[in-house]
Amino acid sequence: MSDNTYGKLFRVTSWGESHGEAIGCVIDGCPPGILLTEAMIQAALDRRRPGSSKFVTQRQEADKVKILSGVFEDDRTDGPRTTGTPISLLIENTDQRSKDYSDIRDLYRPGHADFTYDAKYGLRDYRGGGRASARETAMRVAAGAVAWQVLTHLYGSDISITGALIQMGTKKIDPARANRTHLNDNPFFCPDPAAAQDWEAYLDQIRKNGSSVGGLVEIIAHGFPAGLGAPTAGKLDAELAQALMSINAAKAVEIGAGLEAASLTGEENADEIRMGPDGPEFLSNKAGGILGGISTGQDIIARIAIKPTSSILTPRKTISREGEEREIITKGRHDPCVAIRAVPVAEAMMALVLADQALRHRGQCG
Amino acid sequence: MSDNTYGKLFRVTSWGESHGEAIGCVIDGCPPGILLTEAMIQAALDRRRPGSSKFVTQRQEADKVKILSGVFEDDRTDGPRTTGTPISLLIENTDQRSKDYSDIRDLYRPGHADFTYDAKYGLRDYRGGGRASARETAMRVAAGAVAWQVLTHLYGSDISITGALIQMGTKKIDPARANRTHLNDNPFFCPDPAAAQDWEAYLDQIRKNGSSVGGLVEIIAHGFPAGLGAPTAGKLDAELAQALMSINAAKAVEIGAGLEAASLTGEENADEIRMGPDGPEFLSNKAGGILGGISTGQDIIARIAIKPTSSILTPRKTISREGEEREIITKGRHDPCVAIRAVPVAEAMMALVLADQALRHRGQCG
Amino acid sequence: MSDNTYGKLFRVTSWGESHGEAIGCVIDGCPPGILLTEAMIQAALDRRRPGSSKFVTQRQEADKVKILSGVFEDDRTDGPRTTGTPISLLIENTDQRSKDYSDIRDLYRPGHADFTYDAKYGLRDYRGGGRASARETAMRVAAGAVAWQVLTHLYGSDISITGALIQMGTKKIDPARANRTHLNDNPFFCPDPAAAQDWEAYLDQIRKNGSSVGGLVEIIAHGFPAGLGAPTAGKLDAELAQALMSINAAKAVEIGAGLEAASLTGEENADEIRMGPDGPEFLSNKAGGILGGISTGQDIIARIAIKPTSSILTPRKTISREGEEREIITKGRHDPCVAIRAVPVAEAMMALVLADQALRHRGQCG
Amino acid sequence: MSDNTYGKLFRVTSWGESHGEAIGCVIDGCPPGILLTEAMIQAALDRRRPGSSKFVTQRQEADKVKILSGVFEDDRTDGPRTTGTPISLLIENTDQRSKDYSDIRDLYRPGHADFTYDAKYGLRDYRGGGRASARETAMRVAAGAVAWQVLTHLYGSDISITGALIQMGTKKIDPARANRTHLNDNPFFCPDPAAAQDWEAYLDQIRKNGSSVGGLVEIIAHGFPAGLGAPTAGKLDAELAQALMSINAAKAVEIGAGLEAASLTGEENADEIRMGPDGPEFLSNKAGGILGGISTGQDIIARIAIKPTSSILTPRKTISREGEEREIITKGRHDPCVAIRAVPVAEAMMALVLADQALRHRGQCG
Repeated sequence: MSDNTYGKLFRVTSWGESHGEAIGCVIDGCPPGILLTEAMIQAALDRRRPGSSKFVTQRQEADKVKILSGVFEDDRTDGPRTTGTPISLLIENTDQRSKDYSDIRDLYRPGHADFTYDAKYGLRDYRGGGRASARETAMRVAAGAVAWQVLTHLYGSDISITGALIQMGTKKIDPARANRTHLNDNPFFCPDPAAAQDWEAYLDQIRKNGSSVGGLVEIIAHGFPAGLGAPTAGKLDAELAQALMSINAAKAVEIGAGLEAASLTGEENADEIRMGPDGPEFLSNKAGGILGGISTGQDIIARIAIKPTSSILTPRKTISREGEEREIITKGRHDPCVAIRAVPVAEAMMALVLADQALRHRGQCG
Repeated sequence: MSDNTYGKLFRVTSWGESHGEAIGCVIDGCPPGILLTEAMIQAALDRRRPGSSKFVTQRQEADKVKILSGVFEDDRTDGPRTTGTPISLLIENTDQRSKDYSDIRDLYRPGHADFTYDAKYGLRDYRGGGRASARETAMRVAAGAVAWQVLTHLYGSDISITGALIQMGTKKIDPARANRTHLNDNPFFCPDPAAAQDWEAYLDQIRKNGSSVGGLVEIIAHGFPAGLGAPTAGKLDAELAQALMSINAAKAVEIGAGLEAASLTGEENADEIRMGPDGPEFLSNKAGGILGGISTGQDIIARIAIKPTSSILTPRKTISREGEEREIITKGRHDPCVAIRAVPVAEAMMALVLADQALRHRGQCG
Repeated sequence: MSDNTYGKLFRVTSWGESHGEAIGCVIDGCPPGILLTEAMIQAALDRRRPGSSKFVTQRQEADKVKILSGVFEDDRTDGPRTTGTPISLLIENTDQRSKDYSDIRDLYRPGHADFTYDAKYGLRDYRGGGRASARETAMRVAAGAVAWQVLTHLYGSDISITGALIQMGTKKIDPARANRTHLNDNPFFCPDPAAAQDWEAYLDQIRKNGSSVGGLVEIIAHGFPAGLGAPTAGKLDAELAQALMSINAAKAVEIGAGLEAASLTGEENADEIRMGPDGPEFLSNKAGGILGGISTGQDIIARIAIKPTSSILTPRKTISREGEEREIITKGRHDPCVAIRAVPVAEAMMALVLADQALRHRGQCG
Repeated sequence: MSDNTYGKLFRVTSWGESHGEAIGCVIDGCPPGILLTEAMIQAALDRRRPGSSKFVTQRQEADKVKILSGVFEDDRTDGPRTTGTPISLLIENTDQRSKDYSDIRDLYRPGHADFTYDAKYGLRDYRGGGRASARETAMRVAAGAVAWQVLTHLYGSDISITGALIQMGTKKIDPARANRTHLNDNPFFCPDPAAAQDWEAYLDQIRKNGSSVGGLVEIIAHGFPAGLGAPTAGKLDAELAQALMSINAAKAVEIGAGLEAASLTGEENADEIRMGPDGPEFLSNKAGGILGGISTGQDIIARIAIKPTSSILTPRKTISREGEEREIITKGRHDPCVAIRAVPVAEAMMALVLADQALRHRGQCG
């Protein structure tokens, strides 16, 4: 992965700032002959879109994606098919309200990348966070939708990748009550309908207070074969860790037992194996579907901790570019819990990593 | 990072199996003119070496590193200096006892990579875990010592990277009692001498039971400037997450507040800023020294959870390559807590990531 | 360089087909703070533009480039400055006449990539050659203009990169009469005005016959310092060879003495060295400014042979996708000598390679 | 390709200086399950070895290669098989005579990389040319032997890659008399026995004069399928150009018609197509087996011009490190025509590029 490129064989290079003319990405290395329509990508984007409830930023953009290259259709194809050449995706920025941000061009917002971008580059596009804005993640979701087409092409339609918000602030769900069929019944991708109701009141209060709260996202990839991954640097879990930690506001990544593994004994941790009707079966999944950096065929389970939005209405201490000590309140349209929108992004990153590993595996091992 | 290569400009490619003739690595992209001796690398290796106490594997190898290329000395240089060409490091495998492993060539050890390597490659070097053995991490420590020379060349001798074991199994240290000056006073890299004594009895019992236990490692990089990192895929924290998760037995990576960030409010999480005598100062460090993927100049703080060794003396259910259901006890020389040895490895990975980011930063930004 | 990406630190990923909605590229790794306007890029594109004389394809497109990201301007900057984040460039395809190509969707044009794209991908966008069209080179010229800004930023305004057509078909110029001040006085980038007049009649006849002819392009980079390049795989000449051979229709790349070096003796070939007023001076330049893959500080000299356009009006034997034997005449708007348009593209590729090597050099060696 | 790494999926990282302890390489990404013995690699090295006739350097080294990792054998395998993990190859330097070079540590030999390495790195290992020595090419030949095993695994035993010296200094062979069955009947890899006899006297005279001479090498890859390659940067011919130009002393690379293409008309150049008994057949091969950067299934034909050895016994003008004007005679053991030894190196580079492209193709296109 280069600075703005995810993947090695299935490579996604993203570009664009929050308040520039557009954002986009180029996908290079996609297999040819795969059905790909703008509607498929749009459906993925619509899950992530701002404005879908009062709990996410009220920026009203259609976020209409365009496929500019890499797909071809004529009367001999049954729809647009990938050609194996680079796929360029673009979304125009239409609702930018640049004025909202003019007062912060000289102030470093605590918890934001304002200070560090200036430290690195000497200048920055401060409008809406520029390149550091979560808006960039729209392109990851779009690219993830292409990766998903590749994965179903390779492994059939029984695979799934589902993300869920399993903790909002101090409120964790009871795993015993979680049921992923409910994920889309509530505005939080929450697998427990009762918890979702509780969260609604909780987050409403947070929002009214001008505050924000973090969350924990869990992503499960189901139905993938054993054998995806690589030793050492290219471990599947290592690449997932990079991909997931690269999501805005992520502060921790867990695989399987995760942090809890530190407290366990060898007897508690290592998953025993027995033969099942369709081959080897593990009696537990502390490994999160990955051993030695290579998939076991079990569910691949990852979690990411997302920090609370740093834009809040409480005055905070900061400094200006010139070093004056100041107070700041970050106005504007913001999410009281960005972890909600991180759910489809995390699904997309899982899809990108798996598609890339799958193609690399096919390249090396046939 | 390719499958066995860490880094982009400062690139370390590792090779070798636990019971082959040797292990080694090639470091490409090292700046020229840097003092580098075998003794410098050896000192780093000796911190990690097996056999240094009863709590780590009793494999007795000198682990003598040789520099085979990339360094030159004559009567005009004040010692061996890097030339800018690839540095090849090699350690011979001298104490292999291949017989120990002959009984497991057909059995998949639970928690080990035996099953997944076979699933991926169709065959494997089963002796001592082959490529999946923790022995590979010796080369990361060796390469980390080279990275360290680069970093002190760039940033002076006031920087530091120190790892500590802050939790062993269920026993966590009290942060208030931690003091990193004690790290080398005990066999655990434990910053609290009292806890270290407690751990000694605890781990002794674990070892006698033929069991094992996990642990939590914390690495702190101090004295590094603001501005290291990159947007999106190349974020400093994303690359750290990949590097640290690629360590054998790692199951979670945290940056700064880490998992706890999920429970916090925006007020609690975002670090406020004031001017100090030497420039901007943050009033807290929930960010772990990284904002928007770029260093803030504060301490860079990461933690990794290490699972317990999977090799234990309790019989465990497994299957053979042919699918027969079997029991297995993993004999041999093993660590009751591999997290101890993960400490110098984690320090090395932090050094590798920082050296690579530092050179890339210099390349792009001057 | 990945499949559609040029460079390592200064990376250009190009996308787009001849008759899709648009073509574009993403430049990642550009240093921040560099002045960059659409007009600067447009000026480079205009040198290459189709329709500028009767000797290049009559496709009438404005080829107006847009900068979509990576550049920022406000009242504190003296114009648009690069921010260090990805620069996205886009040119809309406005004059596509897709109908011209409908009769060749089932026929493989001799000398074109129709057959090989189908062999690789199983399908292709046949309109205007799709991804294999020389139209893609517009983005290289655009990216080359950005690279040029980087190079003048690094090395000042005394550097130059100039391409010239020094042979058209069987007609070579006399080096003794060449003078690069005349390059833009004629439609051929020919350094000898008398030869240019001769070529005009020659090429007019070729064009009227419905035929085409090849050419030889020479690119000279002047004023660059010694020390750019790398050993073995990353040699400056090796990367130039890849970059130049990747230009459509290129069949040979020479550095310095080039092919002639095969006939020389050691005495004739090796450039002797003396001290000049400003440092070492070579008494000749058979090396073409590169020794051991690293620049000497002399002029860097490369040449590429460009084959004749394969689209001609003479009937040619070919087969259809279904394997029927057929004759084909390639109608449409085409260049009788594509080597003319290869001149600015070759300049751009030289600039891309030098910018990338310069930044990598700064990263490794400071 | 990174600075010392060839390839993307099949990656070869070379290391080592002429007079260090050893030279070696690491091959990452090799498919598992492929038979690989030291004898196979040794056979390739023996073709290239110094000391095999009076026309190549008299350095007497066994050049015994060792495989240190990545291969495994037990009683269930029918020999050593690759495991899919990195393959480390090593050759010890045993006959170094460092004293020969002590007088040139302060002088820049004309035509050598002495000056440019100092310009880039500020210091260099001057013994025998250090990293810039042709000795490094031994590892390319070794790695090429591994690539060859991969290629026969993929495409069967009817493929071939053969290099020939088709011009020595001013003496070109008559293509009509060339017959590749004679390549190993003479010390020059010359396909025309009569020419070989003539060359023997010619080169003997060159050698006695203390002079040297260049040459032209042609490599033909036969039996490879259509469809290998990629658009734009990853073109098969572009990657071949980089790989071949990276060979020491290379000054030009041609594909198919090569330089001659500049003089041809479209009618003469584009290869017509007809149906043959086994599928499409081209009526000529001006393309050298590559169209649009992708293989056609015809013979892949490349040529490289190799400059004359720069080490000659005639006194030459040069300067010292301190800028004094001096004369130099390069004594030592040298080749009067290094193009001879470039033949097996060029074959190896062709094999490396094809193996890498083949695996990438399988990864993307199945």
